[in-house]
Amino acid sequence: MKTRVVVTLKPGVLDPQGKAVHHALTGLGFGGVNDVRVGKIVELDLADGTATADIEDMCRKLLANTVIENFRIEQA
Amino acid sequence: MKTRVVVTLKPGVLDPQGKAVHHALTGLGFGGVNDVRVGKIVELDLADGTATADIEDMCRKLLANTVIENFRIEQA
Repeated sequence: MKTRVVVTLKPGVLDPQGKAVHHALTGLGFGGVNDVRVGKIVELDLADGTATADIEDMCRKLLANTVIENFRIEQA
Repeated sequence: MKTRVVVTLKPGVLDPQGKAVHHALTGLGFGGVNDVRVGKIVELDLADGTATADIEDMCRKLLANTVIENFRIEQA
């Protein structure tokens, strides 16, 4: 069972990596970019029937820092 | 216009970060994890009407290293 966990910085938390990408895109001549935020995606190949509660537990304990990051679980 | 670019390592490319996460999940007692791969997600806030070709261009020139990474463009 393939599951994706998307971890993104909470709104309001400074994102220097996103800022750098934004700056670089502008420098390369790409206009019309208003904002860039960079997050991470964790693709898990789990045993069938793994409960969503368990996946949330993984996120809270390891994959995301819930003080500054949000996570979203997407079943592929 | 919100657009997400998902950048993942190509199959067969070694993913030490994914291996480390896998190991840590097992160490925390989460069973049934077969594989973990870690990628990045770039959330772009673009001017309305930005062409998909332009976004692909951004990916090829900056966001992804197409030698070892695949990218996928998802309109939110």
